[in-house]
Amino acid sequence: MSSIDQLVDSEMDAMVADLQTLIRQPSVSAKKQGLVECANLVSSIMKKAGISSDVLYLDDKSIPPIVCGELKSKSNPGKTLLFYNHYDVQPAEPVELWNAEPFSGKLEGNYVYGRGSADDKGELITRIKAVEYYLKKTGDVPCNVKFIVEGEEEIGSVHVEQYLQKYHERLACDGVIWEFGYVDAKDRPIISLGMKGLLYVELAATGPSRDAHSSLAVLIENPAWRLVSALASMRDSNGKILIKDWYKEVRDFTSQELDVIAQEPFDEAEFKEEYGITRFVAGAEGRDVKKALVGMPTCNIAGLNSGYIGEGAKTVLPSKAMVKIDFRLVPDMIPERQLERLKAHLFEHGFDDIEVVFIHGEAAARTSISDPFVKQVEQAAKVTFGSAIISVSSAGTGPMYSFAKVLKSPCISVGSTYMFARIHSPNEFARVDLLNKTTKCIGRIMENFSAG
Amino acid sequence: MSSIDQLVDSEMDAMVADLQTLIRQPSVSAKKQGLVECANLVSSIMKKAGISSDVLYLDDKSIPPIVCGELKSKSNPGKTLLFYNHYDVQPAEPVELWNAEPFSGKLEGNYVYGRGSADDKGELITRIKAVEYYLKKTGDVPCNVKFIVEGEEEIGSVHVEQYLQKYHERLACDGVIWEFGYVDAKDRPIISLGMKGLLYVELAATGPSRDAHSSLAVLIENPAWRLVSALASMRDSNGKILIKDWYKEVRDFTSQELDVIAQEPFDEAEFKEEYGITRFVAGAEGRDVKKALVGMPTCNIAGLNSGYIGEGAKTVLPSKAMVKIDFRLVPDMIPERQLERLKAHLFEHGFDDIEVVFIHGEAAARTSISDPFVKQVEQAAKVTFGSAIISVSSAGTGPMYSFAKVLKSPCISVGSTYMFARIHSPNEFARVDLLNKTTKCIGRIMENFSAG
Repeated sequence: MSSIDQLVDSEMDAMVADLQTLIRQPSVSAKKQGLVECANLVSSIMKKAGISSDVLYLDDKSIPPIVCGELKSKSNPGKTLLFYNHYDVQPAEPVELWNAEPFSGKLEGNYVYGRGSADDKGELITRIKAVEYYLKKTGDVPCNVKFIVEGEEEIGSVHVEQYLQKYHERLACDGVIWEFGYVDAKDRPIISLGMKGLLYVELAATGPSRDAHSSLAVLIENPAWRLVSALASMRDSNGKILIKDWYKEVRDFTSQELDVIAQEPFDEAEFKEEYGITRFVAGAEGRDVKKALVGMPTCNIAGLNSGYIGEGAKTVLPSKAMVKIDFRLVPDMIPERQLERLKAHLFEHGFDDIEVVFIHGEAAARTSISDPFVKQVEQAAKVTFGSAIISVSSAGTGPMYSFAKVLKSPCISVGSTYMFARIHSPNEFARVDLLNKTTKCIGRIMENFSAG
Repeated sequence: MSSIDQLVDSEMDAMVADLQTLIRQPSVSAKKQGLVECANLVSSIMKKAGISSDVLYLDDKSIPPIVCGELKSKSNPGKTLLFYNHYDVQPAEPVELWNAEPFSGKLEGNYVYGRGSADDKGELITRIKAVEYYLKKTGDVPCNVKFIVEGEEEIGSVHVEQYLQKYHERLACDGVIWEFGYVDAKDRPIISLGMKGLLYVELAATGPSRDAHSSLAVLIENPAWRLVSALASMRDSNGKILIKDWYKEVRDFTSQELDVIAQEPFDEAEFKEEYGITRFVAGAEGRDVKKALVGMPTCNIAGLNSGYIGEGAKTVLPSKAMVKIDFRLVPDMIPERQLERLKAHLFEHGFDDIEVVFIHGEAAARTSISDPFVKQVEQAAKVTFGSAIISVSSAGTGPMYSFAKVLKSPCISVGSTYMFARIHSPNEFARVDLLNKTTKCIGRIMENFSAG
């Protein structure tokens, strides 16, 4: 079979237009905004590409649906590649920091701006287009292809495991291409073999039954102070988590993993410049920086709120204070166990009045470096991009653990997302040149996978 | 001269209607909302009452004006009583917790609801009406009366001292009735002789140049964590402020003040029930509770904000974190000096990256218990309410220090604000029965003051 490169080049306008259509359908899972609409849109784009597609639900129809797609290979029906993506996006806030309307899909030269442009609508479109162009060019695909596109990735893929279990026959496969893949500042794709886990909680402190005049702070305990004290007990200034046994199940790196980590390029100066910082947490340098990205658990304050946050001065003693915390987990930490440790910590430190609201948890996973699928992807990426970097694990989180457990297939991340594409931030963008290359790369992955 | 009691009773509907008119004109100084409109409204209500009135400015016309009122006594032109009030109000937020629209001035039985109903439009109307009814009843007032009604009390009376200095001849007086006065749960007026001071600041921590994906918390320092650490260094769990020399200039109570504090009633159980709390800061009880209200400095978190505070989960590493802090000060703490101590504390504890934004400061003040004006007010309150309580100082803040310094007159708080009237909180209210009694009390104060 021949590659789809020429067709990708000649049809780029159509790819960008489909991406813009996807961006223009807001689909914010945190707000349950536009999810069914976006699922239907994805399904229709798949059908237009020649992929049979269904929007599928769990028994509880209030849960956002998944989009499943399938196209059987006539020439090689014995091997199946599954593409996992998501149609939901992060909230666009703070909206005032966007240069263009967050859901406009504005095209400017090599950049398509918008919430979801990179994460994950841009990635999704590269997968669909690779299949579409293969079919258009050859009348077939090199192997069976399947799609699962979920709508809750940005809120922790809370039901994807249930979906995988319910539809595991329909989704059976021999390899999974993950929903994203980073490209570094030197245009080298980072082929990532793992994902961190996540424990996301809200802690809520309650003070007086209503906001009070702050002159009463002589008598009434301020819940914001309670929360500050509780938080201060949880993490030191070097990022170390002070909760008892927090690191107990952390799996050591293998020597093969340590070798790969040592070979990974990482431009510290460039990273610092990009984020406007002068040092890393705990003053990390060199290999410690790379090991942190691959394997360090974190305790991050994602949101903090109490009292009056508007303009000027209001002398109020707030009735409530709230913090959102995301803990990144690594193999073999178990989210439920870490949650219990957090609760025990608060109790033992006298903060039993602080309410812990569990938002979600998912475990970390890593595909073995020695799996043959790794070489197939690496070769495709090297041919397309000129080089490729293997990474033991992404710093981010996804439900890879569920896929590995239910589908028992190796999962690999490769994709089109520029490392500084501002995902989850204002002015998120996709680069047209990387959408182009990644679509070609997916084509080659199908070929290599079929032959492997 | 005869008292105005009968006239106050027969004209209550008119008083409530004028109060509602004032509430319906929003005048939020923190947002610069409706201030000039409200000043003009106050002036017109004064004129309707027979008081000559002007809306006066500083050179900078963008600063909210004051309303000055004056009515000379024919029978006793040698003595002048000044009423100090304010026409501005606190922000209404959180608006969703109000049962009625915050600026509706809704009357329900004995309650007039609305932002400013008690603080301070209710108090202002009792002063104006006492003068109006005296004039109506007798064709004169017992002494000269003057008014100064400012528009920035809720943001720390930032220009009232400049106004006092510019118009000090026009405002010259022999005694000042302060802008508010509490009435306790047993309907006893609290005659307060002092005000605490205030230092209001914002602390801002800056992290990456934009919000980042929280997976990068392994490398990028989170500004919310910086702020939490800085806050945790400033105050212990008993409310003690840990900033070096913070208490250095705190004036000891005199034995006379300690006697008065000991005599002050304070129902701890009722207070706790009202605010839904089970203990006081540091477990205070008995006389310590009363001493705290009168003389304890505080460090209160009035507002806290960072990252994503909406529904659901967003995995973000925020670029900024902010806290609003109000420090209550007591005699003889100097706000500017305390600000320098705060800055030095942050610097010495390694938080020199945290920006300190000064919002405002004012010093505390106390009128001497032995001033003859105290007995004049006390007698008027006892006759009107049946009893009265002398308090060495309110727990709240006001520019009493500026009045004492510029006008060199004793200042006394007495008024109509029910202790649990939810000032600065949702569903603030004024009690019609207390508006009635306070107006009568102000009438008697004018008589006693004239005779004294």
